[in-house]
Amino acid sequence: MNVFDAIRTRRSIRKYLNKPVEREKLSKILEAARLSPSAANRQPWRFIVVTDQKIKEELRAAYDEDWFVSAPVIIVGCALPSEAWVRSDGEEYWKVDLAIAMQNLILEAWELGLGTCWIGAFREDEVKRILGIPDEVRVVALASLGYPAEEKGSVTKRKPLEEIVSYNYW
Amino acid sequence: MNVFDAIRTRRSIRKYLNKPVEREKLSKILEAARLSPSAANRQPWRFIVVTDQKIKEELRAAYDEDWFVSAPVIIVGCALPSEAWVRSDGEEYWKVDLAIAMQNLILEAWELGLGTCWIGAFREDEVKRILGIPDEVRVVALASLGYPAEEKGSVTKRKPLEEIVSYNYW
Repeated sequence: MNVFDAIRTRRSIRKYLNKPVEREKLSKILEAARLSPSAANRQPWRFIVVTDQKIKEELRAAYDEDWFVSAPVIIVGCALPSEAWVRSDGEEYWKVDLAIAMQNLILEAWELGLGTCWIGAFREDEVKRILGIPDEVRVVALASLGYPAEEKGSVTKRKPLEEIVSYNYW
Repeated sequence: MNVFDAIRTRRSIRKYLNKPVEREKLSKILEAARLSPSAANRQPWRFIVVTDQKIKEELRAAYDEDWFVSAPVIIVGCALPSEAWVRSDGEEYWKVDLAIAMQNLILEAWELGLGTCWIGAFREDEVKRILGIPDEVRVVALASLGYPAEEKGSVTKRKPLEEIVSYNYW
């Protein structure tokens, strides 16, 4: 699948087949995250791959949705701010780094026929408690992963280009 | 170009041919950003496409590198925090949203034979002053864009998968 088609057709998938994700596909998806660029190449990321049904059920304390628990895999995207590059004015880039890696992972999953859903509305304290994530680590995003059980058309609801692009000046 | 090859072969390009980027390619690259997912689909992004040589020269006040000015195009990725989704605990997601869109743009550029370089080490106040960006808007990242004048192999210097992935628990 070419890059543009992956971007154009990727949709948030919230219904999954009861079918595990093959180890080779999971490896390739994680490899897509691993190869991502990050500020000063610090790679301040860790990914927890949750496949255990009991732990997924526990994660409802952090994100209480039926569809979420039905996904065969939950990827937990964590950042280590202490490892990350910081600009001289103090601006932090670990959220940017993690977002790049998660997006690469999500596009690669789609190429392999797998659906995902970006999740930001989780309780970070609960995710950390359940998965034993150290205090200093930040959870940036979760992504569900599995074979889609719903079909959706291409992306539609977006602002027109004229609203979001200008030339040379604001 | 398939997604995995784009991710695997994309490199930061800092040498550019003196050749403009065709309008159709630029449109497709911006379309890749436009179609990106964002938290609650808020799309809190604006992209300023700088092609004017005089303005690029002025931008040296924000990022003083010869190679940067030699890029035919500079994309300035801006976020509007007031338009963006915020989690109930106050956590902000506009950096994540912008990073997703910039990464889509960068992968699509690569697919079209164009090189880019993520830039984070800029002086935000100077970028805003030069381009007339309102106070409340944040500049998340710049990306240079143009035909590469250097060849680089695939991505190599990355942490091994074992260091960045764990299963079910931290």
